Amino acid sequence: MKTQQFVVIGLGRFGSSLALELMDLGYEVLGVDRNEEVVEEWSDRLTHAVVADATDEEVLKSLGVRNFDCGIVAIGNDIQMSILSAILLKDLGIKTVVAKAISVLHGRALEKLGVDRVIFPERDMGVRVAHQLVTPNLLDYIELSKEYRLVEMRVPQCLDGKNVGDLNPRARFGCSIVAIHRENGVIIAPTAMDHLILGDIMVIIGAKKNIDEFEAIIND
Amino acid sequence: MKTQQFVVIGLGRFGSSLALELMDLGYEVLGVDRNEEVVEEWSDRLTHAVVADATDEEVLKSLGVRNFDCGIVAIGNDIQMSILSAILLKDLGIKTVVAKAISVLHGRALEKLGVDRVIFPERDMGVRVAHQLVTPNLLDYIELSKEYRLVEMRVPQCLDGKNVGDLNPRARFGCSIVAIHRENGVIIAPTAMDHLILGDIMVIIGAKKNIDEFEAIIND
Amino acid sequence: MKTQQFVVIGLGRFGSSLALELMDLGYEVLGVDRNEEVVEEWSDRLTHAVVADATDEEVLKSLGVRNFDCGIVAIGNDIQMSILSAILLKDLGIKTVVAKAISVLHGRALEKLGVDRVIFPERDMGVRVAHQLVTPNLLDYIELSKEYRLVEMRVPQCLDGKNVGDLNPRARFGCSIVAIHRENGVIIAPTAMDHLILGDIMVIIGAKKNIDEFEAIIND
Amino acid sequence: MKTQQFVVIGLGRFGSSLALELMDLGYEVLGVDRNEEVVEEWSDRLTHAVVADATDEEVLKSLGVRNFDCGIVAIGNDIQMSILSAILLKDLGIKTVVAKAISVLHGRALEKLGVDRVIFPERDMGVRVAHQLVTPNLLDYIELSKEYRLVEMRVPQCLDGKNVGDLNPRARFGCSIVAIHRENGVIIAPTAMDHLILGDIMVIIGAKKNIDEFEAIIND
Amino acid sequence: MKTQQFVVIGLGRFGSSLALELMDLGYEVLGVDRNEEVVEEWSDRLTHAVVADATDEEVLKSLGVRNFDCGIVAIGNDIQMSILSAILLKDLGIKTVVAKAISVLHGRALEKLGVDRVIFPERDMGVRVAHQLVTPNLLDYIELSKEYRLVEMRVPQCLDGKNVGDLNPRARFGCSIVAIHRENGVIIAPTAMDHLILGDIMVIIGAKKNIDEFEAIIND
Amino acid sequence: MKTQQFVVIGLGRFGSSLALELMDLGYEVLGVDRNEEVVEEWSDRLTHAVVADATDEEVLKSLGVRNFDCGIVAIGNDIQMSILSAILLKDLGIKTVVAKAISVLHGRALEKLGVDRVIFPERDMGVRVAHQLVTPNLLDYIELSKEYRLVEMRVPQCLDGKNVGDLNPRARFGCSIVAIHRENGVIIAPTAMDHLILGDIMVIIGAKKNIDEFEAIIND
Amino acid sequence: MKTQQFVVIGLGRFGSSLALELMDLGYEVLGVDRNEEVVEEWSDRLTHAVVADATDEEVLKSLGVRNFDCGIVAIGNDIQMSILSAILLKDLGIKTVVAKAISVLHGRALEKLGVDRVIFPERDMGVRVAHQLVTPNLLDYIELSKEYRLVEMRVPQCLDGKNVGDLNPRARFGCSIVAIHRENGVIIAPTAMDHLILGDIMVIIGAKKNIDEFEAIIND
Amino acid sequence: MKTQQFVVIGLGRFGSSLALELMDLGYEVLGVDRNEEVVEEWSDRLTHAVVADATDEEVLKSLGVRNFDCGIVAIGNDIQMSILSAILLKDLGIKTVVAKAISVLHGRALEKLGVDRVIFPERDMGVRVAHQLVTPNLLDYIELSKEYRLVEMRVPQCLDGKNVGDLNPRARFGCSIVAIHRENGVIIAPTAMDHLILGDIMVIIGAKKNIDEFEAIIND
Repeated sequence: MKTQQFVVIGLGRFGSSLALELMDLGYEVLGVDRNEEVVEEWSDRLTHAVVADATDEEVLKSLGVRNFDCGIVAIGNDIQMSILSAILLKDLGIKTVVAKAISVLHGRALEKLGVDRVIFPERDMGVRVAHQLVTPNLLDYIELSKEYRLVEMRVPQCLDGKNVGDLNPRARFGCSIVAIHRENGVIIAPTAMDHLILGDIMVIIGAKKNIDEFEAIIND
Repeated sequence: MKTQQFVVIGLGRFGSSLALELMDLGYEVLGVDRNEEVVEEWSDRLTHAVVADATDEEVLKSLGVRNFDCGIVAIGNDIQMSILSAILLKDLGIKTVVAKAISVLHGRALEKLGVDRVIFPERDMGVRVAHQLVTPNLLDYIELSKEYRLVEMRVPQCLDGKNVGDLNPRARFGCSIVAIHRENGVIIAPTAMDHLILGDIMVIIGAKKNIDEFEAIIND
Repeated sequence: MKTQQFVVIGLGRFGSSLALELMDLGYEVLGVDRNEEVVEEWSDRLTHAVVADATDEEVLKSLGVRNFDCGIVAIGNDIQMSILSAILLKDLGIKTVVAKAISVLHGRALEKLGVDRVIFPERDMGVRVAHQLVTPNLLDYIELSKEYRLVEMRVPQCLDGKNVGDLNPRARFGCSIVAIHRENGVIIAPTAMDHLILGDIMVIIGAKKNIDEFEAIIND
Repeated sequence: MKTQQFVVIGLGRFGSSLALELMDLGYEVLGVDRNEEVVEEWSDRLTHAVVADATDEEVLKSLGVRNFDCGIVAIGNDIQMSILSAILLKDLGIKTVVAKAISVLHGRALEKLGVDRVIFPERDMGVRVAHQLVTPNLLDYIELSKEYRLVEMRVPQCLDGKNVGDLNPRARFGCSIVAIHRENGVIIAPTAMDHLILGDIMVIIGAKKNIDEFEAIIND
Repeated sequence: MKTQQFVVIGLGRFGSSLALELMDLGYEVLGVDRNEEVVEEWSDRLTHAVVADATDEEVLKSLGVRNFDCGIVAIGNDIQMSILSAILLKDLGIKTVVAKAISVLHGRALEKLGVDRVIFPERDMGVRVAHQLVTPNLLDYIELSKEYRLVEMRVPQCLDGKNVGDLNPRARFGCSIVAIHRENGVIIAPTAMDHLILGDIMVIIGAKKNIDEFEAIIND
Repeated sequence: MKTQQFVVIGLGRFGSSLALELMDLGYEVLGVDRNEEVVEEWSDRLTHAVVADATDEEVLKSLGVRNFDCGIVAIGNDIQMSILSAILLKDLGIKTVVAKAISVLHGRALEKLGVDRVIFPERDMGVRVAHQLVTPNLLDYIELSKEYRLVEMRVPQCLDGKNVGDLNPRARFGCSIVAIHRENGVIIAPTAMDHLILGDIMVIIGAKKNIDEFEAIIND
Repeated sequence: MKTQQFVVIGLGRFGSSLALELMDLGYEVLGVDRNEEVVEEWSDRLTHAVVADATDEEVLKSLGVRNFDCGIVAIGNDIQMSILSAILLKDLGIKTVVAKAISVLHGRALEKLGVDRVIFPERDMGVRVAHQLVTPNLLDYIELSKEYRLVEMRVPQCLDGKNVGDLNPRARFGCSIVAIHRENGVIIAPTAMDHLILGDIMVIIGAKKNIDEFEAIIND
Repeated sequence: MKTQQFVVIGLGRFGSSLALELMDLGYEVLGVDRNEEVVEEWSDRLTHAVVADATDEEVLKSLGVRNFDCGIVAIGNDIQMSILSAILLKDLGIKTVVAKAISVLHGRALEKLGVDRVIFPERDMGVRVAHQLVTPNLLDYIELSKEYRLVEMRVPQCLDGKNVGDLNPRARFGCSIVAIHRENGVIIAPTAMDHLILGDIMVIIGAKKNIDEFEAIIND
């Protein structure tokens, strides 16, 4: 299987972070930015990095952008450039085009223009951090659906030494501990006999309101 | 228990999103921004919103900032303001101060000044999106540790109708399916007899390299 | 039949000229511009004129824009504003949305977003003036199709006093004089006996290359 | 006959469109603009294109501008430059000088300075588009005089299949159908027996108020 | 005889100095400037002073500018405003319009637009000062024609006590002393017997080259 | 005698005009300006012209400025540069330093710093033009003292053909005609028998109020 | 004795610090600054503080500046304002005028204009800090003359417990310890029997080179 | 002993003055500034001077900054740069880092980040000048502690010829004359028989309030 190729338009904080991670994951990345200094900064760490105006169709063609598997429009604050670049990437026939939006209306425009996925990094991270702030033991979480959530939580002092059976979250709160992570090892589907130890990380699944109730108790 | 109070300095995309989510979660939020238009835009949706210079100690005192439980410095691009505000929040005695950084050096300064948690929203979201791009079925993931990861993945066509026992990821790839989410219900710790159906979301836990191997097979 | 209502976004040279002509034609026009001075300048001459940001959905709703029959996005040079306004007008349910574009790519974006008609005033007028410059007697023309054209031309000195039969453009050049306009009167479908007089305006129809040939002869 | 030569000052949207059309029509065009990037963009498509300050008499002389047949001052928004360039072109002895104006007062200045023809592209196009918007079937029109007009109109559904004699616009509305354009062919001076077919384009001549009345009926 | 009325457009250094001198000479002056601070500064010292845009015809009409005897366009550096104001003053029917120019081309434009007198204050004063610098005893001079000049010169040490007859400039240099100014008195057409005294000012008339020769001798 | 050498700091409108006139008068001129384009424009027409910062003592020394006979600080609008340059010219030992001032306070500063002569070109020219405007026949004038003036005046229609004796200005108005300039010739100290002819220029000397009275009569 | 009155022009870092110290010392201070925010910031802490343009003579007169004993021109970076203000303060008759300079040439201008004392805060502090950096025990020093200096120095470890007689700096280095400061007390003119203790501050007087030698030994 | 090496970040007035003094004292100095012109100006007078961004860790490493003994952050007005540079200098392991602050909050940030000494040049010099202004004979002073001060004072007229015994400051005012400086010589610990002469400089030590009392008497 041929290595997937990505073109990232805009090498600001979001774009460069994304591009570097793709490189780390073993993919080929072409970085494009209008700003020469920015391109120089990243040119050593990407497969290619070029100074170019991504709203100029001829330029994109000459870069062979049409042959890339995925295009990411990561342009920071210039809605106009973001929209025009996205159109060009789509029209050049790139299969998957992802774009960052900075407002709801910007996002709507991108969707109407056929962008496959619209991302709101600042907004999404704001939401994520809010949850972590109000639940000190919460490390991270995934929204499985509107109702269900998967959370990663530190075992707090008050649970230290208790076993899962005593805690019995399924019966008491309607949510389950599906895994316990302890010093580089993982207990999958812990039984009632498994103990929680201060410093463990437990992975809990359940309806949001049930997990909230559980958190409230153990944070109290 | 008294409701927790948060003060959010800077109501840009990140700050406003964080503040609104805190409101939704039932907490009290004071929003502070230098820009009058911005404050007007959010004043209806936060407990309080004021136009103020967050680098002026007297102003912060007069707002009673010292009584807040947590301060979030969400200032966009002005490193100087971010640093000076963070110092003031710490000096006023706020227990937890969180701050957004826009560069590694900025983050280092915030940590040295005693900020409790430094966040890099654009960088972190870049990394997260990179993973999602290279694994079409990957919906989201959590880093449990340097080695272990928890992933949320769509069941692809090739697994439709297979039962967990046939797939046997633990034996073949060293990672486990800890839950299957299907139309608003969840199967916790599925047994070998549980079937995967196209459209299900499975939650998998394991070492990163094992999960990668598993993903590569099913994406093929 | 209720009078048609138009909303014109952007009261620059193009927008204000269009809005005034619509007023002269007896329609109702709401003019919208971000610039207070501009709005003041035109407020006496339009049904309504308001200072507003046409990229703010709430603002457009409160202006009742959804009840207008036709929206014209006449924003001068700000592609971003033009695109976002056009999306909002379409989403608010206005039946016909017309927008001015300042570049090919801008025009393409507007079309993809569902704008019903895209106009390039400067470009079109450039083409029109070019034709007039190279044919001194040409007053104006209409493109009937890629092949056929209708032209309005002054009768030059060399044709003064000739009758249509002598000139016989249909036989000699393959194009026809369909009308002659003389001092406020019009001769429809002139016969071979009708005379051309210096100062008359003749309306000619034919294939472009035939008309060009005819023009070349009489301009010589 | 020697090919006519044009010098176009200002290669913005209007100037470049005009210059390209002149090239397409087979004339020689010298494009002049202060902006190097703009000149580069068009240099391949014009006979010559140079970066120059068109208010510097020596520069214009060295370009041999005095030998051109026609000068077009197509400078966008800088009234001062437009006026000073127009003076120089006239003083250098160019026979025909045409200039674009952006306001009534600007136009008056150009006329007083001896410019042969003053053009208001945005204003004129605004008027033209207004007419098209209020008459959906109207494609284009020419003002023959203050009273008379020539219009190009799509045959609407309600006229499909009718013959010209039945419709009898001359008798009923005082305006005449001088031509019908149907799939690349043209019926000149159609007789009462000619049929109108949906999709045809008819060319009508008459007094404005008569044509308006006719339009109102068929649009109803 | 009714007092003459002047309107001065632009109250910079040149315009304000001119306006004040006209006031001192007993005339009525309306000062117009776009800048509020400038108008405030001079409002006490002119008959009227208003903040207004002198390129807005309606504004000028409402100020009754058409009734003034003379208009002076003393706008500093904005050629566009200068030209447009001058056109309006002429079109409003002011009999005499004087304008300051800042370049040769600007001056040419003003003349073509019908301005009655064009002034180049900085250029003219540069010439005048040059003459004074090279002739230390020269106080001032008037160009009577291309050939003749009238000069005001201090009597230098070397002429102290000489009588006009001894000096005999008419015979020796071809120029005449037409007056001697001494402590508030004047000797008109001094005779050969009149003495020159150090500190006297003599007025000399003659051909330029003759006066130059005379100056060179006495400066030596 | 060695040719005098002048250094002119600032080649704006006043400075360049002064420098060119000095060149025409046969002197050597070094022009200095910070602006490269300005220096290029004048370099052909002055003995030397250099791009330099005239507030940098080392630069002025390296240009050998100390050897010049006279320095003129003709800097346009930058009071700081004007003052600092003037100090340096004085300190370098130039015998005569002349400087242009743009305000009374600026002029006072220059005088305190030892500048030999301070010039206010715009102000002085404003005064001069004011006089010319109110006396249509006045061509130019010289202030001999606070009381006495020398004026150059066109002979108006009403004096055409009169002889000096009839007019008798000395007896009637207390002012004398000291010369009549007629087509390249001059009548010195005209007698009572000399005639005035329309088109002549007469030179009149007298107390201001007497001349004003005389002017009023002949302008009436 | 009437309290001395000071006017401080410019309330930046230097000016405000100086003004506050004068207030602390019991004097009356009028602070003047063009910037309204700055004036507001200090108005509570000075006798008076006004927003005013210190280059406007009328304004200074209306503030009664002529009655002040001393004027300090503490204007930050605007050389022009600094010079013009200084002239006005001198001309208004203030006995002592002190001004801050930001360059050597600026200082020279101020001196020529009669300013009584010119201060270079940044330059002087730079010199002072340099000395402290290279002599870790040096706390501060005073230049008595070009040759002699008075220094304040911490007693280093190596001198702890030694008595002055043993150290004998006068004999060994030619400099004398004139005082020893120890915990809020002072030993004047210590005798040979007085001991130095780590933490004492000794005041030494002597020729610079002798003190340097002494410092070098004890720092070694 | 190896010569100490200093790196000075920011070559403005304070930084350059400090750097030059260090050079004069015989140390090696590397000057760093972002501004090319500034670096050129000082490059001849420092050991090295480079154009560099002192917030770029790689750049500082490549300059070998880690090997310097002392770093001085003398950046003028950019708090952000000042803070980030200071962090880098500390992290690179420079033993002593000194930084200039422009506000109290800036100073607090620098201290929290571990800067060894924070300097406020403008503020400190303001205080120092205030003291000199209110005591005309005061030349300079050193704060030994909150209570004690050492002052350098000119001997005023009223003390001329008196001997120290008569004056007896210790008995009358509680402060001592520790030295008298007279024409390049110094009298250490003067006895009661030593005379004061107009023009001498006396060094006095004592409690502040005692010295103030003494000054008040002799200034009266």
